[in-house]
Amino acid sequence: MIRPVRASEVAGRFPQLITATAGNLLATLDSIQIPSEAKPNAIVFVVDPKFTDMALSSPAAAVVLSVKAKAAIEALPPSDKAFLFSPNVKLAMALIKKEFFTFETPLQDLGTVHPSALVDPTARIGAGVTIGPFCVVGKNVVIEDGARLDAHVVIEADAQIGKDSHLQSHLYIGPRTEIGQRCLLMPNSTIGSEGFGFAPDERGRFHRIPQTGKVVLENDVEIGANCTVDRATFGVTRIGEGTKIDKISHIAHNCDIGKHCVMAGKFAIAGSGKVGDHCMIGGRVTIKDGVTVASKVEIAGLAGVQSDIKESGAYGGFPVQPVRDFMRTGASLPYLPQLRKDVARVLKHLGLGAAD
Amino acid sequence: MIRPVRASEVAGRFPQLITATAGNLLATLDSIQIPSEAKPNAIVFVVDPKFTDMALSSPAAAVVLSVKAKAAIEALPPSDKAFLFSPNVKLAMALIKKEFFTFETPLQDLGTVHPSALVDPTARIGAGVTIGPFCVVGKNVVIEDGARLDAHVVIEADAQIGKDSHLQSHLYIGPRTEIGQRCLLMPNSTIGSEGFGFAPDERGRFHRIPQTGKVVLENDVEIGANCTVDRATFGVTRIGEGTKIDKISHIAHNCDIGKHCVMAGKFAIAGSGKVGDHCMIGGRVTIKDGVTVASKVEIAGLAGVQSDIKESGAYGGFPVQPVRDFMRTGASLPYLPQLRKDVARVLKHLGLGAAD
Amino acid sequence: MIRPVRASEVAGRFPQLITATAGNLLATLDSIQIPSEAKPNAIVFVVDPKFTDMALSSPAAAVVLSVKAKAAIEALPPSDKAFLFSPNVKLAMALIKKEFFTFETPLQDLGTVHPSALVDPTARIGAGVTIGPFCVVGKNVVIEDGARLDAHVVIEADAQIGKDSHLQSHLYIGPRTEIGQRCLLMPNSTIGSEGFGFAPDERGRFHRIPQTGKVVLENDVEIGANCTVDRATFGVTRIGEGTKIDKISHIAHNCDIGKHCVMAGKFAIAGSGKVGDHCMIGGRVTIKDGVTVASKVEIAGLAGVQSDIKESGAYGGFPVQPVRDFMRTGASLPYLPQLRKDVARVLKHLGLGAAD
Repeated sequence: MIRPVRASEVAGRFPQLITATAGNLLATLDSIQIPSEAKPNAIVFVVDPKFTDMALSSPAAAVVLSVKAKAAIEALPPSDKAFLFSPNVKLAMALIKKEFFTFETPLQDLGTVHPSALVDPTARIGAGVTIGPFCVVGKNVVIEDGARLDAHVVIEADAQIGKDSHLQSHLYIGPRTEIGQRCLLMPNSTIGSEGFGFAPDERGRFHRIPQTGKVVLENDVEIGANCTVDRATFGVTRIGEGTKIDKISHIAHNCDIGKHCVMAGKFAIAGSGKVGDHCMIGGRVTIKDGVTVASKVEIAGLAGVQSDIKESGAYGGFPVQPVRDFMRTGASLPYLPQLRKDVARVLKHLGLGAAD
Repeated sequence: MIRPVRASEVAGRFPQLITATAGNLLATLDSIQIPSEAKPNAIVFVVDPKFTDMALSSPAAAVVLSVKAKAAIEALPPSDKAFLFSPNVKLAMALIKKEFFTFETPLQDLGTVHPSALVDPTARIGAGVTIGPFCVVGKNVVIEDGARLDAHVVIEADAQIGKDSHLQSHLYIGPRTEIGQRCLLMPNSTIGSEGFGFAPDERGRFHRIPQTGKVVLENDVEIGANCTVDRATFGVTRIGEGTKIDKISHIAHNCDIGKHCVMAGKFAIAGSGKVGDHCMIGGRVTIKDGVTVASKVEIAGLAGVQSDIKESGAYGGFPVQPVRDFMRTGASLPYLPQLRKDVARVLKHLGLGAAD
Repeated sequence: MIRPVRASEVAGRFPQLITATAGNLLATLDSIQIPSEAKPNAIVFVVDPKFTDMALSSPAAAVVLSVKAKAAIEALPPSDKAFLFSPNVKLAMALIKKEFFTFETPLQDLGTVHPSALVDPTARIGAGVTIGPFCVVGKNVVIEDGARLDAHVVIEADAQIGKDSHLQSHLYIGPRTEIGQRCLLMPNSTIGSEGFGFAPDERGRFHRIPQTGKVVLENDVEIGANCTVDRATFGVTRIGEGTKIDKISHIAHNCDIGKHCVMAGKFAIAGSGKVGDHCMIGGRVTIKDGVTVASKVEIAGLAGVQSDIKESGAYGGFPVQPVRDFMRTGASLPYLPQLRKDVARVLKHLGLGAAD
């Protein structure tokens, strides 16, 4: 369960994120809520200033606001609430929620190996590792200190799992896969499957090209549930440090995804595609095989990226365009039938017949 | 195996769906078939009247037809077939097929807990519950009477499974998930995974906002295989009573899907999206985060719903339009290259140069 | 581990694929590499002639080239490399890589049944079958000689697994599914799930039509990770011999996919869709329910096939067009906003007001 904590302790934990305080710092906090549903002893975060009044009039015991709101709050009559001011309320919420107000009951005591788990004697298991029921750990696998495997995780031979990574239930980790530290991999994903590579023969039958490469996930990568990341034909399929990929996404063989990107749900990138660092990619975006996307690129949902994006900026559409042009194209599409009629009218009016 | 049954018993089981009969009601039935493949002792359903002759000339022992066909059938020469007449032949097929002509051999005797299953001692298991091999049931889980877990189902702490729900193999049920009565959840789906929420810091690194909400599936919900339903950041991700969601769909955190909807394969709805009641949504439709779709809306396959749909009706396209306009836009698209040429010709003819 | 082998042995193994040789056929080979990363004792394949110089100047011990390069190579000064010439270098790579240079360490010794696996006593298990940890094999299942099930595979009653097929971990195989010989099915896929079929009642509630058909995968079919293949409402959902389907694809109930097709990632085909033989389908293509695609059709990625394709050829777009027209439409789309302005200008110039 969540341990009750004083507002002062919360305020002091991330000094760069809570840069000022006011009010009753002795308030006791035992839950985190949104302003509209706050209970007594809750802490609430005003990520959007339009919820300020709702937060202030709620029974919450502590309110976290932007430092910009400080003067206005201090001008209010005294209150028994604690006020915490942050230069980045959303980040403060993320870190304070994780540190103080999150509790998940695991399937078994952390740091234990369940007796039903099958761990090959050649595997090297670090200190404090959790291995859940019905897990299968193959030959020469290395699991570093503090890593956690929930139930039914299968790890093939020669894979490596970094320190403090968390592999949730029903994951499949293919041969030679290298997973960095503090990664979070969600249920039912397949990391390190055979890539999709075939050679046709003279009768049009397809013969598999065995995929002898591997997948490398760097530190702090997150992969959502029901994703697939294929291993390379030769070499490496890489996902860079800190990159977060949402549910039901597919990363094909030999792709190279940069650091600190976010890809929303149902992302797909075909073989040997490349994405730079710090990209933000919307839902159901597709990147064609062999295409390269520069760093600091944003791509609107549903886009189909069929050619390289060489400049940072915002893009959308299929074919992909700068996002302003994509918005205009989209806004014009519904006028297309009328446009056809108008042009037919003009051609007739001018006596210009059909031509090519 | 399927128990042979007389046509009279079938006819009497759903009196509102079989409103009249004719012919040989003593016929024995032991299978359900389509008209073109009917065997002796089969029952066939004429859902589309164009298959009436095929059904009548087949060796089937019983034919179910629309009540509209009654007079025509009665005018035929005597036959040894049974004729059942229904105001809703498709619904009659669904219910009669389920009641009399469906048989699946389960992996183990229903109502038993397999000795290999791991059920936490704090879990509360109702009467007649089936728990299959290698299932893992976490702390404080409640499984109501008659629920069935096939093999390899993992249920995290504090989840609840309603009466007579059927959880198929390899499912993952996240913490606090609440599943109603008579739900059907298919293999390899992930219900109650962490939602996709991050806060960036000043260096562009993303920090997870822990998702402390839950998923609620109301009664009679079906979720196809390999789907993901994320739990809420705060509060609830809800799927309303009777709604059916097809394979490889994704429901993001904090979505609220209404009652009695059907979503075809590869549906996706981003964070905090809302759908009303009685909606029918085609394959591969995407709904943007925060967008609301009214009740009684139909959306054609492949649509991208980037803004609210406020009126019931039929829609399609990206951007989404009323379906008639979407059809016209689609029909005009192939003429776009010719349109460009025609307009260039007109501009030249009129001496109107390029302009902005 | 990989067994070192002489170039002469490799050259002699597939006489129709290696039709000429030169140089040092006694060279010992112990790995396969791409030209840019070749180590001593590696064999490299020049699939694209532009990498010829890179391969020749690499430390590789053997180089496989097109037969067209034979004269040029023979004109070079003597070298200690082996040269193998092929009419189909890519196919040679596929077969030689598989035969000599691929080695995956399985989770357990092949040909053994893991003691944790649960095999129903009515199942018939052939010679040399591998059944991995925590597998569950239902009643009356038939597994033919040499088939391999990795960990956590669940097979429902009455299914059949053909000779030498390989079922990877976390697979779900539904009731009555028939899998041919030498099939490869990847992790977390669901083969033989309930199709998506409902009948609405007068109150708009949906009632499941039980899906009593089955899935048939013919010989040499491959299904990627996290796919779903639904069983038929009645009859059969079929995937033809030699067809390869990539990750996160969905094949709905009663579809009929031909022989020797390749479908790239995230393919989807709705109920009763049909595809001929020798089709090549790009990523994220959708085929509407009931639509038929002819044989020898290529479809570009992201296409939406809403009506029949009756002629072999290349297609793309939504609505789908011949690929040349689709390319032109796509190239014209960004000009649409300008086109609207131009037409407005022309209408004004001509004094032609808005009309319908």
